[in-house]
Amino acid sequence: MNIYAEAQNLHQLGLEMYDLIAKLYPICRSITGDGVRKSLHILQELIPLVIHEVPTGTQVFDWTVPKEWNVRDAYVKNDLGEKVIDFQVLNLHLLNYSTPIHRKMSLSELKEHLFTLPEQPDLVPYRTSYYKENWGFCLSHNRLKQLEDGEYEVFIDSSLEDGYLTYGEYYLPGEIEDEVLFSCHVCHPSLCNDNLSGLALATFLAKYLGSQPNRYSYRLLFIPGTIGSITWLSLNESKTHHIKHGLVISGVGDAGGMTYKKSRRSNAEIDRVVEHVLSHTERESKIEEFSPYGYDERQYCSPGFNLPIGRLTRTPFGKYAEYHTSADNLKFVKPSSLADSLGVYLEVIDILESNKRYLNINSKCEPQLGKRGLYGNFGGKQDKRADEMEMLWVLNLSDGTHSLLDIANRAGIKFQAIKGAAIALKKAALLQECSEEVVSRNAIEK
Amino acid sequence: MNIYAEAQNLHQLGLEMYDLIAKLYPICRSITGDGVRKSLHILQELIPLVIHEVPTGTQVFDWTVPKEWNVRDAYVKNDLGEKVIDFQVLNLHLLNYSTPIHRKMSLSELKEHLFTLPEQPDLVPYRTSYYKENWGFCLSHNRLKQLEDGEYEVFIDSSLEDGYLTYGEYYLPGEIEDEVLFSCHVCHPSLCNDNLSGLALATFLAKYLGSQPNRYSYRLLFIPGTIGSITWLSLNESKTHHIKHGLVISGVGDAGGMTYKKSRRSNAEIDRVVEHVLSHTERESKIEEFSPYGYDERQYCSPGFNLPIGRLTRTPFGKYAEYHTSADNLKFVKPSSLADSLGVYLEVIDILESNKRYLNINSKCEPQLGKRGLYGNFGGKQDKRADEMEMLWVLNLSDGTHSLLDIANRAGIKFQAIKGAAIALKKAALLQECSEEVVSRNAIEK
Amino acid sequence: MNIYAEAQNLHQLGLEMYDLIAKLYPICRSITGDGVRKSLHILQELIPLVIHEVPTGTQVFDWTVPKEWNVRDAYVKNDLGEKVIDFQVLNLHLLNYSTPIHRKMSLSELKEHLFTLPEQPDLVPYRTSYYKENWGFCLSHNRLKQLEDGEYEVFIDSSLEDGYLTYGEYYLPGEIEDEVLFSCHVCHPSLCNDNLSGLALATFLAKYLGSQPNRYSYRLLFIPGTIGSITWLSLNESKTHHIKHGLVISGVGDAGGMTYKKSRRSNAEIDRVVEHVLSHTERESKIEEFSPYGYDERQYCSPGFNLPIGRLTRTPFGKYAEYHTSADNLKFVKPSSLADSLGVYLEVIDILESNKRYLNINSKCEPQLGKRGLYGNFGGKQDKRADEMEMLWVLNLSDGTHSLLDIANRAGIKFQAIKGAAIALKKAALLQECSEEVVSRNAIEK
Repeated sequence: MNIYAEAQNLHQLGLEMYDLIAKLYPICRSITGDGVRKSLHILQELIPLVIHEVPTGTQVFDWTVPKEWNVRDAYVKNDLGEKVIDFQVLNLHLLNYSTPIHRKMSLSELKEHLFTLPEQPDLVPYRTSYYKENWGFCLSHNRLKQLEDGEYEVFIDSSLEDGYLTYGEYYLPGEIEDEVLFSCHVCHPSLCNDNLSGLALATFLAKYLGSQPNRYSYRLLFIPGTIGSITWLSLNESKTHHIKHGLVISGVGDAGGMTYKKSRRSNAEIDRVVEHVLSHTERESKIEEFSPYGYDERQYCSPGFNLPIGRLTRTPFGKYAEYHTSADNLKFVKPSSLADSLGVYLEVIDILESNKRYLNINSKCEPQLGKRGLYGNFGGKQDKRADEMEMLWVLNLSDGTHSLLDIANRAGIKFQAIKGAAIALKKAALLQECSEEVVSRNAIEK
Repeated sequence: MNIYAEAQNLHQLGLEMYDLIAKLYPICRSITGDGVRKSLHILQELIPLVIHEVPTGTQVFDWTVPKEWNVRDAYVKNDLGEKVIDFQVLNLHLLNYSTPIHRKMSLSELKEHLFTLPEQPDLVPYRTSYYKENWGFCLSHNRLKQLEDGEYEVFIDSSLEDGYLTYGEYYLPGEIEDEVLFSCHVCHPSLCNDNLSGLALATFLAKYLGSQPNRYSYRLLFIPGTIGSITWLSLNESKTHHIKHGLVISGVGDAGGMTYKKSRRSNAEIDRVVEHVLSHTERESKIEEFSPYGYDERQYCSPGFNLPIGRLTRTPFGKYAEYHTSADNLKFVKPSSLADSLGVYLEVIDILESNKRYLNINSKCEPQLGKRGLYGNFGGKQDKRADEMEMLWVLNLSDGTHSLLDIANRAGIKFQAIKGAAIALKKAALLQECSEEVVSRNAIEK
Repeated sequence: MNIYAEAQNLHQLGLEMYDLIAKLYPICRSITGDGVRKSLHILQELIPLVIHEVPTGTQVFDWTVPKEWNVRDAYVKNDLGEKVIDFQVLNLHLLNYSTPIHRKMSLSELKEHLFTLPEQPDLVPYRTSYYKENWGFCLSHNRLKQLEDGEYEVFIDSSLEDGYLTYGEYYLPGEIEDEVLFSCHVCHPSLCNDNLSGLALATFLAKYLGSQPNRYSYRLLFIPGTIGSITWLSLNESKTHHIKHGLVISGVGDAGGMTYKKSRRSNAEIDRVVEHVLSHTERESKIEEFSPYGYDERQYCSPGFNLPIGRLTRTPFGKYAEYHTSADNLKFVKPSSLADSLGVYLEVIDILESNKRYLNINSKCEPQLGKRGLYGNFGGKQDKRADEMEMLWVLNLSDGTHSLLDIANRAGIKFQAIKGAAIALKKAALLQECSEEVVSRNAIEK
């Protein structure tokens, strides 16, 4: 895996991810319905996604797959026949999962179904009512104030009927059955950072992983939030023991720094890998402790699963003013941010793939590196060459209990440098890879 | 247990504790004798205290119950026949455990038996000589300086004879045999904060505990310091394994902040409970590590017992200028401080009583809180309601290994809020209480 | 062991160590050869050192004992026949392990074999070429600039032939077979701090240890760096399990503060002992984490041995400008610094020798110290005498799981005070020494 070659491509990939977001932006997605299907078909042009359809009424743990929702049109007209709120202009205008209605009513009756953001009076909020039947419209507070008394025609041509919950899955078998899960939610309508950025990054990650052989198997899920992960976990419970690491991908297109929210375990390998990557870059970044609120990590980290899955975003949801408003649009996400986020994910993958344990074959005293051409010839100098220090660290800690990441962290050296030293030492027959068996035997003896 | 209803009473209880202190103040107490008996009889008017009498000479571990000391009168007269030091005015004037004497002597001979505080020249010190027979008087340094050369008549009408060591005990059986021990010392004469405040608080705690059913059994000890706890431990060694938590009560009436001194174990449940209470209030407070000097925690935490018993005071002994002087009087303790201290103790008891482990019955993914009326209906909003976060924390961590206090601490939320969420979830049949068996099985599997 | 009596001698010992350094300074040492032999013979005048000779070609783990190097003379003459570089003036002028040569050459050809320090233009560097055959000269950069074009006569009368690697060893059997290892390197030519200071301190440590009975056995190694420790470990592998503590001694004569580099284990007893000593003095000091570069701790702490051996120096190598230059001379090391370093080593030894576990015989409640004359008689005083606090700490924590150092660290009290309390309590029959058996039984029961 040569992430450096890939890295040169990151700028170009950032532009391509942005184009994909632009293509998906107009579609009205929800937790079910044709918007999700249409979006997944667009992704299928890039990666061989399998699309699953789960019937309405399917029991998934404590939940039931809901009716499928589709919408063709929706508007509110004033008594002049002018559309004062129009779904065709911006699909956020419609309360997501609104039931059909076609009726005239007074402004005061209508107002009970209108949602605005008084503190951000220019923006249209994003609201949903999945599990309680209702209808409504979202609009800017300024527009609301302009509405005059009178009779309004409310029209929502939607359907809420037995159908399916749709999700996409891409499984890439690797050298071993142990797998890495990447999960993103696909249920938000015209919102770019949350979460078209996640869809785009997951798609290009899948493309990248599919282009090469991998040690781990990889699974990428493109699912509606909450009900989607619950559905997948319920239908695939027997496979979850293969998941050794995972990340929830979301909000990876804004201009802010990176934020990692740890898994419930808090010291899982994925937690330590992402912390290492973020601490060894110039990027602004933050590590958050696990909490049981958020995206689908809530389900993956529920106590009955407790999977080692964290969430890797840029600015976390709710911490930027554009969150869940019409301002989370194509201007808010940047190709350069998408490229940078992808770079972080690729570094994480590179560490996961390479983070093995080795055994120093000459564990009693140092091996003589000089005679193997791995060491400077003149003694007495004050400074040690960085590559020599890296080799000394790998030799000293390769006792079967330290992974390369453990060594990098104890040495305070970037993983890739430690990995480079391990490769050189293995080539010189000074290091051998630990079999899993050796790893556990050493652990027991300690 | 409704500590909030009680809390409304705290102001009133503060006044009542203060009145009790005022009633006990004039009595000359010591580690044995009628002063202790009289004091315990006054407490018996409020709680059904059992009074134990342990004969002089009883061997209690490395110690022997001493002779009983009683005093009727004591004074020093100058050669004009004026009482220059008078026990009747303030019982601190007499070196506690003074042997009888009636003799004339010069000032210089007398001075070898006089104790003052040169750096606090207006105050009378408190001094004892329990285990070495001696006599003496304590007086202010200013008074000492006024004493003129001449002959003095020294009169101490005391007795030091075989008798008894007296202590009070109140045992309240609860739902389980596991018990909580509260211990206070009753051996100090006219000193208010140290420790009439402790006696008063323990008495009202006992009254409160006796007014309701409790999960734990409770034991309250009213004992002379050091020899009292040694005596009780020696005579009740076989019961000590029931003690699961405990606090030494002392110095709870001054105007300073709260101070908790941890048990020798340093991470016992009582340590974590008190730390939680103190960190979740506006009160000024301090946590101290265990040390082997102090009050009766020295005995409870001796290595052969190592009981999980801390010490919860306001300003610690020795850290206020009034400590062990005549200034530790009725002006020094405040009804409001007594009330505040009682409130802290009640919160500690509330947590101990409620700090159970629960199992999330729907541990795979989140249960659907909305359909049970426990959750808001409109999705998409930025802020999570506090009560919803509390429920999510309880559900996420109720895996049989986390107590409610563990959950509160990991969530950074006050215990009572987490407890409220657990009650709501249990009511909705989403949570079941862990039997002890389940708790240990889960712990083993981990 | 009375280190305080010794301490009074420290000033005198500092002067004697300095004299020894002055005597050793002119000798041209290397990793093999007569310089080492001559140096060890000088030490034999002070301590009964055993000198070992290991033949060239001996396989020691991954290394081979090299040919023995000896040098009689070496110089470079200009075409006027003047010696412009002269080994007889300063042995650092010769690249250590230079092969013989006698040939004329141009300045430009010569320059490929000259080493200088352009940033310290007045100093002569120290350079070696042990494992790659080469010849060369070291000189000041200013002198190099003065060399004019012309023909130079290069003369090195050295030999590199089959012979021996020479090292010194002093083993002092103690009460138990468990041993403490002190190791210093003897391979540097005219350099005082690195490491004649180490040789001198190790010699006087050996003298001190030999003058008294000790609990531990002690082993002092005087070996060439790297190849010496590898050789010793290879030839004595079966003895290494006796090594319970150890220190690499080096750089103990400069005026800087003390620096301790932890063992690879990082929490070995030796680590905790040295940390205690350094934290309880006024001396400036620093604790460094283990790293796999440095002196012979690299070999002792290689993963196949992982011995509990740290390195205790003053300013670490490479952190002073004089390091590995002609300025590391007799002016750079100070008798007072040598004395101070020896004092620290003696304190470390004192703690190691005394750091036992005791059992409080009266573990249930406190024993009555007063009746044994160990305690003040008048109760009620605010301040506890320091010696009483020390006794209370020792009694409270002497449960078979805490060593005296554990107690000192938990109490925040200097080891010697805790040790004094333990001695007093043992004398009063309140404490008994734990047999190793008791220690492990208690540990298991916990």
